[in-house]
Amino acid sequence: MAVNDKGILRFLFDYVSPYAYLGWLQIHALAAPFQRKVQPVPILFSGLLQANGTLGPVEVPAKRAYVFKDVLRRANMLNIPLSMPPTHPFNPLLALRVSLAPMEDSIRRKLIDGLFTATWGSGKGITEPETIAAILETVGLDRKTILTAANSVEIKDLLRQNTEEAIAQGVFGVPTVHVDGELFWGQDSFPSLARFLAGNEHLDTELLARWATLQASATRSKP
Amino acid sequence: MAVNDKGILRFLFDYVSPYAYLGWLQIHALAAPFQRKVQPVPILFSGLLQANGTLGPVEVPAKRAYVFKDVLRRANMLNIPLSMPPTHPFNPLLALRVSLAPMEDSIRRKLIDGLFTATWGSGKGITEPETIAAILETVGLDRKTILTAANSVEIKDLLRQNTEEAIAQGVFGVPTVHVDGELFWGQDSFPSLARFLAGNEHLDTELLARWATLQASATRSKP
Repeated sequence: MAVNDKGILRFLFDYVSPYAYLGWLQIHALAAPFQRKVQPVPILFSGLLQANGTLGPVEVPAKRAYVFKDVLRRANMLNIPLSMPPTHPFNPLLALRVSLAPMEDSIRRKLIDGLFTATWGSGKGITEPETIAAILETVGLDRKTILTAANSVEIKDLLRQNTEEAIAQGVFGVPTVHVDGELFWGQDSFPSLARFLAGNEHLDTELLARWATLQASATRSKP
Repeated sequence: MAVNDKGILRFLFDYVSPYAYLGWLQIHALAAPFQRKVQPVPILFSGLLQANGTLGPVEVPAKRAYVFKDVLRRANMLNIPLSMPPTHPFNPLLALRVSLAPMEDSIRRKLIDGLFTATWGSGKGITEPETIAAILETVGLDRKTILTAANSVEIKDLLRQNTEEAIAQGVFGVPTVHVDGELFWGQDSFPSLARFLAGNEHLDTELLARWATLQASATRSKP
């Protein structure tokens, strides 16, 4: 299949987000009719929160209570199997780093499938190096080679760089799709994304410009 | 039309939210096939933010830049006209309070239509008492009667009480639909809401219970 001469579709994600899991399981089917290549971009969600001074959904008790039920509802509607990892939040660093190690694109996709499934589909989790190693072997990768690469300075830097680039581009959550200079945040924005890829998005640029400079007439003292 | 013997559908909103505007223009058509009565419940969004210790979308620069484009995309897809008020954020107190004054349900719906349209549909805004008074007259209400009621202790207390009840029920954003003890946050949750009203929601209660007590294995230092 010829890749569209327009840009590739960058899928920015972190395994800690169940919405990223739902997004990952939809993005390839969404992109295919438009001949867009999907490039998975692992980033550290907590880095986005730190940079934007925001709280993650599970750091706000009322949101934490709501969010998993919301994910379950959406998963049911999409016929996507959903479970949960043994702990949450968890440290996703090793899983993100192995996802960035050198390998073929088709293998990387299977690896990310495996890591997302272990997190939100089967509930085994991805915090133990041994679990990650088993997934590496399932997709035909050599555990020692990949784990060594994942712990190299180059890969650690690459994850940091991905996250910093995302922050510089205005990304504040996961999943985010970055394509042709546009951002689409959350898998619930995928209908908008499909419309954009089909060339059917015609936004009022004057209105967008007005928003950019619109003044506040009321503010509150921030927490 | 007979009202369903199950509970009424409470639509919690604040005029400052363009997502609440999109939600308001969809909720009646969504509820009608299920014979559910829609009860509009004005609340103060900034009160939710204060209580939950969170930032509103426009208080985070990266989100502020993104959010209006997202709303515009969704409005276009829904064929809903979208503009913006003269200033944002603005003080919605008087508009919320007139929406709570004593009047017939059918008039209240038209009034809320008018106030939402002045905010996000035509761009005249709703911060000036004179603009609000003109909208009151358009829907056949007496300006003096309603503005006097809106400034009474009873109505001020009612708005505060609505907001406090919402916080106690776990509400953290607008629009939120509260029906039969369940919350649906955001107009993007309306497909889930429709499924619930149709009786087609079958959630894994064991999974939900597990989430409620799931432990973290990693935390970060909050901002």
